[in-house]
Amino acid sequence: MSKPRPINGGVTAPAGFRASGLHCGIKANGKPDLMLIVSDAIASAAGVFTTNLAKAAPIDLCQDNLASSGGRAQAIVTNSGCANACTGPQGVTDAREMATLTASAVGCREDHVLVASTGVIGVNLKMDKVRAGVPQAKAALAADGGAAAARAIMTTDPFPKEFAVEVTTDRGTFRVGGMAKGSGMIEPRMATMLGYLTTDAAVDPALLSRAVREAARYTFNAITVDGEPSTNDCVLALANGASGVQIDERLYPALFEAFRAVAHELALGIVRGGEGATKLIAITITGAATDADAWMAARAIANSPLVKTAVHGGDPNWGRLVAAAGRSGAGFVLDGARVQIGSLVLFENGRPFDELAPKAADYLMGKDIAIEVNLGTGGSHTATVWTCDLSAEYVKINAEYRT
Amino acid sequence: MSKPRPINGGVTAPAGFRASGLHCGIKANGKPDLMLIVSDAIASAAGVFTTNLAKAAPIDLCQDNLASSGGRAQAIVTNSGCANACTGPQGVTDAREMATLTASAVGCREDHVLVASTGVIGVNLKMDKVRAGVPQAKAALAADGGAAAARAIMTTDPFPKEFAVEVTTDRGTFRVGGMAKGSGMIEPRMATMLGYLTTDAAVDPALLSRAVREAARYTFNAITVDGEPSTNDCVLALANGASGVQIDERLYPALFEAFRAVAHELALGIVRGGEGATKLIAITITGAATDADAWMAARAIANSPLVKTAVHGGDPNWGRLVAAAGRSGAGFVLDGARVQIGSLVLFENGRPFDELAPKAADYLMGKDIAIEVNLGTGGSHTATVWTCDLSAEYVKINAEYRT
Repeated sequence: MSKPRPINGGVTAPAGFRASGLHCGIKANGKPDLMLIVSDAIASAAGVFTTNLAKAAPIDLCQDNLASSGGRAQAIVTNSGCANACTGPQGVTDAREMATLTASAVGCREDHVLVASTGVIGVNLKMDKVRAGVPQAKAALAADGGAAAARAIMTTDPFPKEFAVEVTTDRGTFRVGGMAKGSGMIEPRMATMLGYLTTDAAVDPALLSRAVREAARYTFNAITVDGEPSTNDCVLALANGASGVQIDERLYPALFEAFRAVAHELALGIVRGGEGATKLIAITITGAATDADAWMAARAIANSPLVKTAVHGGDPNWGRLVAAAGRSGAGFVLDGARVQIGSLVLFENGRPFDELAPKAADYLMGKDIAIEVNLGTGGSHTATVWTCDLSAEYVKINAEYRT
Repeated sequence: MSKPRPINGGVTAPAGFRASGLHCGIKANGKPDLMLIVSDAIASAAGVFTTNLAKAAPIDLCQDNLASSGGRAQAIVTNSGCANACTGPQGVTDAREMATLTASAVGCREDHVLVASTGVIGVNLKMDKVRAGVPQAKAALAADGGAAAARAIMTTDPFPKEFAVEVTTDRGTFRVGGMAKGSGMIEPRMATMLGYLTTDAAVDPALLSRAVREAARYTFNAITVDGEPSTNDCVLALANGASGVQIDERLYPALFEAFRAVAHELALGIVRGGEGATKLIAITITGAATDADAWMAARAIANSPLVKTAVHGGDPNWGRLVAAAGRSGAGFVLDGARVQIGSLVLFENGRPFDELAPKAADYLMGKDIAIEVNLGTGGSHTATVWTCDLSAEYVKINAEYRT
């Protein structure tokens, strides 16, 4: 079977999916705020959801519907501009009504609808706008509607994120498409802000669920903007079988690689479009004693405001990398540790090589930064987490989010 | 016995201590960078030290000297402008030479000297400057030298932090003085950046050590600027007995309260002087199922960049408080949770009270902000952590720290 080949489009690149995005009136600024994806046939469905205990109402609804339908769905509806989180019993009622409205417009079972919301927490949905919007979204569904859908889920995102791939197997060719949104309150841990994957492969719900979880681990779950897993994080996946390619255990690696390829691009897009971000930073940990240690150290560095501001300013202040690794909770041996920025080794065997600092400063002027920290334990575990720099713009965006 | 009464001064407020601070040449900008505290008599000594595994050379030296002396010391020497961290074998040699130089100037045993350093990581100490500076610092020692000492340990601190109290007991009156420095890489966890406590009470080393640890728990260990425990954090305490007041188990509460009073003021001073800080924010957790949960949730909120930027912007975005509590790892029950900003309850029993948002925004215009989050578990554990807001100035300071 072939490697996944990038193709144009997003969630409607696979056969048998239509989507739309429009402004229904939730956002005051007139930007798109309602999105609908519909599969022509009932699809296998799976999701991974936030581990935040302050879960939003639509997260509960998705989990309930996936359980009651046995992992089947035909539509996903999403609004932006309001998270419908911390909204009490009214929020639960509103999320359910979004599903009812969508089921009625699309003509499917209510538990075959998945719902997501994103935006400000603690404000009730403007249901009059949603009631008028859902039938409009149904009417606007189009086989090339993926791009409009990707725009309608944006909040502070500077650009839409969509990606698609095609894979050829001995049973035929199938496609995977996806879209996602950021861009603050991002450190997904077992889910992401909002991610959507579609495929025209035929996959049973259990295998689909496994593919989403395993692909998310190294993509959506390996990024951070500000270390803040949100109340609404989720990745939803639909597989409608329209390509005729049946995925079984033998072809699972093809599906996994395709999901991973799409999720990787979307996840990196979320980081590049992180609030105030000007650089994408890959933090790779090597020499960790355990897998958990590698992730712990990578996350500690990736969320360190001192590391993120130093990279923002082009300052090769590698001492902050060592300090963050040392306090991360992961096993760490200072005398065996090594710090590499790009191809430049700035600290090794307990000794600094500060004469390389000017070269490292030049390297940090770039947009794509690779940093490697060896924890010096002699272990062989590794992890990579992607983050962005911390700029004054992040502060500005978040100090004024509601005002 | 009396409550601790605030008095003027810092580390030289207690009898029998002299101190000095001067510029020896480590800092390029001509500001004070070398500090010396000397007790007339050999004092009981104790310290709490960073838990960061990338410990700086002077931290190791202090721990070694306290062990070899059985908890006795006569002098503390500190430089600012260079952390002497991640400096390999040369760093160990340099820290030892600082102790030797000080012992020789003061006329005490080498293991009766404690050494601390603060500043940039990964750069070797300019030992020629230190060699010339230590005798000058000895010559400048003065019984009112506490203020000069407090200035000489500053790095990015906007103001010096010193405080002292007096306590009257049935055995007489004793004093406790202290000083501290911040102001970035601050989330002490079992120690603080640099804190110094002196007392003229007579206290044996074991009891002194207990008083420092217990006082630090609710003061230095309950603050955060940026969630970054440093490589050099320590609190050092000297008790020289010059007041003639012997502290035993019966009088221990008087010593503890005095240490706590001084450490509280110093710790809050570190937060108020946090990099880019414009507000002091007290985060109080109530309704936690366990003590550990209360601290975990308080730290998660206190380190949340979204909470810190919202307070900076005067935005009563309480949803971010709920989201941070929900992802903190602490037990959390959304329907029982409550959020209070100042005296205003903005969320209770799963329902928002958004009509109070304008009043809360007014309250957030102040400099001292109190926030309470009840985790809704029905538990009775509480914790308070002090933090500051996150401003564009923090980014500016840290993007340009070395450049």
